[in-house]
Amino acid sequence: MLMVYLAGPEVFLPDAIELGARKKRLCSAYGFEGLFPLDNEIVQEPSGERLDRLIYRANEAMIRRADFGICNLTPFRGISADPGTVFEVGMLAGLGKRVFAYTNVAQHYIERVKRKETLAFDSARNVWRDADDMTVEDFGNADNLMVDWAVAEHGGVPIVRHDAPLSDIQRDLCGFETCLRLAAEVFAKSA
Amino acid sequence: MLMVYLAGPEVFLPDAIELGARKKRLCSAYGFEGLFPLDNEIVQEPSGERLDRLIYRANEAMIRRADFGICNLTPFRGISADPGTVFEVGMLAGLGKRVFAYTNVAQHYIERVKRKETLAFDSARNVWRDADDMTVEDFGNADNLMVDWAVAEHGGVPIVRHDAPLSDIQRDLCGFETCLRLAAEVFAKSA
Repeated sequence: MLMVYLAGPEVFLPDAIELGARKKRLCSAYGFEGLFPLDNEIVQEPSGERLDRLIYRANEAMIRRADFGICNLTPFRGISADPGTVFEVGMLAGLGKRVFAYTNVAQHYIERVKRKETLAFDSARNVWRDADDMTVEDFGNADNLMVDWAVAEHGGVPIVRHDAPLSDIQRDLCGFETCLRLAAEVFAKSA
Repeated sequence: MLMVYLAGPEVFLPDAIELGARKKRLCSAYGFEGLFPLDNEIVQEPSGERLDRLIYRANEAMIRRADFGICNLTPFRGISADPGTVFEVGMLAGLGKRVFAYTNVAQHYIERVKRKETLAFDSARNVWRDADDMTVEDFGNADNLMVDWAVAEHGGVPIVRHDAPLSDIQRDLCGFETCLRLAAEVFAKSA
């Protein structure tokens, strides 16, 4: 049975364990074994090693053990996805594993930036600039182009973009289930 | 001569090319060849392939060509580092290449979150929570623990944290030069 690493900021929710269990049940329904980061249940070692370092090592080991990943790229604490999850997209791609991803906010990246601040159009370069004079990517992507294209190139399908109800934005699993369906199709073809 | 991939949000500056040239000159002074993403000078192909996809492919190829990376993790358009750069930290680590990194804002991650919003302390779990009830990491790191520890584990040294003058936050190269010095030391030892 293929193992899938379940990356996403839901590890920060008070009900992370329950949500992880829901994700793992859905994985089973599609014939996969889900690996949820909290499974590691890190315990402080007598060595006194820092807890955050132990968590990092356990998560990296879990990513290496996985056959592929499904990453939750819903905007987190700002305009972009959770940096921990984005790091994991990169590590999965670097390890040559397939990456599927979803976001519970369908808007283009630039639309989210525009909601936060007024942009200026630089007609000499034909780009939008923010208050720091920095280009705002306008390719119709969900996030920075490196993230969108890593998923499209290393997963074979673009980031799944679905507008979840605002009250359920960190917990909605429609996009997640779409990723499972896509992964099942991709692996059935390559089997 | 070892090649170093120069990741960072400075590619979005109007003077990105000049800044890339400064970085590359510093690399030469430390005995490295700097690879700056804009070097790719992507040209629209007659095939009509999307420009953002071509940029992605050129950058991934450049990362694969590099021997190691130095990543600028200065907060970008919010609390955390540029997601494109964070993705590249992950890809470098997944490819088994050394990762050095710096930030021009020395503050802890949680201090930056606290400046943006009022946090609530969850005494049952002994963690701080944001307005969405999500845990705010409080390990004294510069960013999400996966990013800090990827650098420490895959580069051998923690993220270099240096407070640049506010007016020069996207261009200051003190932390960058510290990374070059550390890389020169690390590679001299392993040679």
